Amino acid sequence: MKFEVTILGSSSATPIFNRNPTSQVLNINERLLMIDCGEGTQQQMLRYGIKYHKIEHIFISHLHGDHFFGLVGLISSMNLNGRKRPLHLFGPEKLMDILNIQFEHSDTHINFPIEFKAVKPGSAELIFETHDFTVETIPLNHRISCSGFIFKEKQRLRKVLKDKIAELEIPANYVPLLKKGIDFTDKNGKVHKAMDLTIEADEPKAYAYCSDTVCDWTYINQIYHVDTLYHEATFMHDMVDRAKATFHTTCQEAGEVAKKVGAKKLLIGHFSARYRDLSPLLIEARSVFPETYLANEGETFVI
Amino acid sequence: MKFEVTILGSSSATPIFNRNPTSQVLNINERLLMIDCGEGTQQQMLRYGIKYHKIEHIFISHLHGDHFFGLVGLISSMNLNGRKRPLHLFGPEKLMDILNIQFEHSDTHINFPIEFKAVKPGSAELIFETHDFTVETIPLNHRISCSGFIFKEKQRLRKVLKDKIAELEIPANYVPLLKKGIDFTDKNGKVHKAMDLTIEADEPKAYAYCSDTVCDWTYINQIYHVDTLYHEATFMHDMVDRAKATFHTTCQEAGEVAKKVGAKKLLIGHFSARYRDLSPLLIEARSVFPETYLANEGETFVI
Repeated sequence: MKFEVTILGSSSATPIFNRNPTSQVLNINERLLMIDCGEGTQQQMLRYGIKYHKIEHIFISHLHGDHFFGLVGLISSMNLNGRKRPLHLFGPEKLMDILNIQFEHSDTHINFPIEFKAVKPGSAELIFETHDFTVETIPLNHRISCSGFIFKEKQRLRKVLKDKIAELEIPANYVPLLKKGIDFTDKNGKVHKAMDLTIEADEPKAYAYCSDTVCDWTYINQIYHVDTLYHEATFMHDMVDRAKATFHTTCQEAGEVAKKVGAKKLLIGHFSARYRDLSPLLIEARSVFPETYLANEGETFVI
Repeated sequence: MKFEVTILGSSSATPIFNRNPTSQVLNINERLLMIDCGEGTQQQMLRYGIKYHKIEHIFISHLHGDHFFGLVGLISSMNLNGRKRPLHLFGPEKLMDILNIQFEHSDTHINFPIEFKAVKPGSAELIFETHDFTVETIPLNHRISCSGFIFKEKQRLRKVLKDKIAELEIPANYVPLLKKGIDFTDKNGKVHKAMDLTIEADEPKAYAYCSDTVCDWTYINQIYHVDTLYHEATFMHDMVDRAKATFHTTCQEAGEVAKKVGAKKLLIGHFSARYRDLSPLLIEARSVFPETYLANEGETFVI
């Protein structure tokens, strides 16, 4: 199953040095989900070949402009492109007011349903679920209400051993039963154990998105053993006081969180405009957690 | 005196093919004025080296998103960059409501004054004036209230002939009087005619910005003899019915307006996303008005 994330923006607050404000697109088994939507996200989608109409779900972490100023334009463009299918939008309660006032005064009629679900501030809740994954909010601690999100694959059924299926001429419609552990009896009455005809499915994977937050460790229970952790890392650690004052995290702290929770991979982003060269930020995070990568625009990471 | 316009966006409705939604920056004698501010305008400013803090006046023609979705982000970035000087903003009445709801819910405190002047729909009025130029609105005919703008240099004083000034040893503090036409009497009592010591100043120039409008000729009285005319040209003329239905103009029509008013130069822009190659649009406008240019991103035109 495909499970990967493409970075559309890595800048904090303001676009700079060819870095765009925050946005990411998750591909879970060819279902595309957007996380945050800073200004210029639709231009980034054009640049990296992500079609507007493929996005069905958008998750907005909080109402600082660098995380949502691109949303009204993206929705307008979806509308102009003739979208009819619903868009599922999750975010702070006031987000719809902000969109609606702009649609109203520009006499824009959105011709597809926007199914909006207000995210409760401060609570960890399951906000979306399909047959193969779930999305939960992660309460973060920022200047204004802010929620991270954790995307978890569900435990999958066992995988069949194709050569054994062929050898025993097991009918295709029996395969789902085998995956569920039901043994197979052949025409001679011999019982073949499901466990012998199948192997364990891959471990379900999880992606956690922690943006923007002071590093106060309150949220780590929800992200233990996550495969890939995206964590904001606005500053280097020599500016930890500034990070705390502005409710942000340093690269060192992001590394410490990833290490503590036993993540397999850490992506850092939301870089302050003060850093043109990001390599010192990467070195700092890697000094704590070696499997760290910069969440650079246009890069895709397999979860 | 410098009088030129730099194009930051030439796309209509939605960004596409590396074309951004509408925005332009006028430089009138090193004073920078922005006209419209589609999404991604601040990124375009970074790309073309236009500093946020140099913009003192912004004119928004109407509330379709491709003309203003970048404004809230630009103002936020000005704020983050520590701006203290006032920003003078002209546009439709509801524009401030749209900005304010976003500042409010994002807990953003803008630390410089925004001096907002609501533009009256449907009336041609003088909305801004300095010692050397004026700005008037041009009522246009679009789906929603829309104003164009005309920027006119004022008639300047005559220019002195420097060699004659030196020859007659005319004191520097007399030069402003000469420019106003007051004759000079030398120490021998001889009168030197101001007209002989000066020449006519350059003709004052004007730039008209006509975005977005159906080509109904109602607005041409205000733009006669403009030096450079920017006119939207969303479609080619084979789509004139679509242009009329959507209250837009064709390239041929834009050429006809420029010809009718005796403009010296025509810039066309606001191109529909249906056109990847713009050369047929240029050819069509030039077939009517040869001095036509595409308002391409990053290009600067001297008025």
